[in-house]
Amino acid sequence: MIELFDLATESDLRPSPYCWRAKLALKHKALAFETRAKSYSDIRLLGDGTFKTLPVIRDDDRWVGGSMNIADYLESRHADASTLFPHDPGRLFVNFIEAWIDSTIQPLIFPIIACDIWKLMPASERDYFRRTREMRLGTSLENAQELNLPKLPAVRASLEPVRRTLKRQPFLCGDAPAYADYTVYGALKWQRLVSEVVLFDEQDPIHAWYLHIDRMATQ
Amino acid sequence: MIELFDLATESDLRPSPYCWRAKLALKHKALAFETRAKSYSDIRLLGDGTFKTLPVIRDDDRWVGGSMNIADYLESRHADASTLFPHDPGRLFVNFIEAWIDSTIQPLIFPIIACDIWKLMPASERDYFRRTREMRLGTSLENAQELNLPKLPAVRASLEPVRRTLKRQPFLCGDAPAYADYTVYGALKWQRLVSEVVLFDEQDPIHAWYLHIDRMATQ
Repeated sequence: MIELFDLATESDLRPSPYCWRAKLALKHKALAFETRAKSYSDIRLLGDGTFKTLPVIRDDDRWVGGSMNIADYLESRHADASTLFPHDPGRLFVNFIEAWIDSTIQPLIFPIIACDIWKLMPASERDYFRRTREMRLGTSLENAQELNLPKLPAVRASLEPVRRTLKRQPFLCGDAPAYADYTVYGALKWQRLVSEVVLFDEQDPIHAWYLHIDRMATQ
Repeated sequence: MIELFDLATESDLRPSPYCWRAKLALKHKALAFETRAKSYSDIRLLGDGTFKTLPVIRDDDRWVGGSMNIADYLESRHADASTLFPHDPGRLFVNFIEAWIDSTIQPLIFPIIACDIWKLMPASERDYFRRTREMRLGTSLENAQELNLPKLPAVRASLEPVRRTLKRQPFLCGDAPAYADYTVYGALKWQRLVSEVVLFDEQDPIHAWYLHIDRMATQ
């Protein structure tokens, strides 16, 4: 049984977009796994103590950290199961999607939801979260939210490449979802779990796609 | 000899990002071609009169319009020459790059350079350009530029997925440039031909990549 170490809030939400990628990669490969709720201060207690971020998985005596490393590991260890990278032999597509989500989409969403995440953190983690994230944002969590909420139309517009793709095919990876879909889903799930803000409505082509993956993710 | 009908300004610059894609696709396939400078009002005189935009090519009695249609046509007609879509059998990557450039990057660049493009248009085309583009921008060309110049840091940041990709491999398509590279290049060439604004400096990983494709494009 694989263990997935997953970032948890005080109320046991699991918002981390990277952890959703790993969770869906495990489900995609139809592997049995159990999630273990962890907070930031637990991370250094995992494996050999060198991990800095979640997700981390343990598969018997193998420890793997980082969502793309986990996807790589599962892909080579379970090459017989459905591939995580269909139609993408050079990984050009999935690597670009990861770069786009990590460097454009999540940084657009983060200032809007950072304060919401902080409120959900265990009391023991709040100071760490506030200090490190305010340094990244260059302002207070409250101020970041107030400054960035008016930019919501731009955040919604930034998802337009996904909309255009979903108008021509049901999933980013083609006829069925795979790791590139999970990477985009992770960012949207992260936002929806912690925030009231609506990034896409029921008329949006993203909606049906999101619900399909959300059923996979939460079943 | 293939003819490429290409949008030209009064001073015979050829800024259209879509025309650069087509031009580089022709060069990639090592095909002999001649460009024909056209203005907006010439487009309806081409082929059977149904074309609305450039580029358009004529290959003997075959007319093809639209940069991706032209790439498709060249790819199937000259399947023996180097592919325009390497490592991308389902075209997931190139279609996403096109959607991203068309719906995110070019719309971020356009308000900043629209007024510069207008100044370069032949006098006969200026009213058409101003009327249609001001409708799209929702304001005057001059006002769009003034409002959007302060957003330059965000435009530069929007290219981050390209930077990240070029840190791991020399071209977006891998070891050699292909159509996805040309699609990104087209947007940057368009901007540099008409505007003084600097989107990437010599330290930027984009710089060497751009120069390589620019030599291909302008030789």
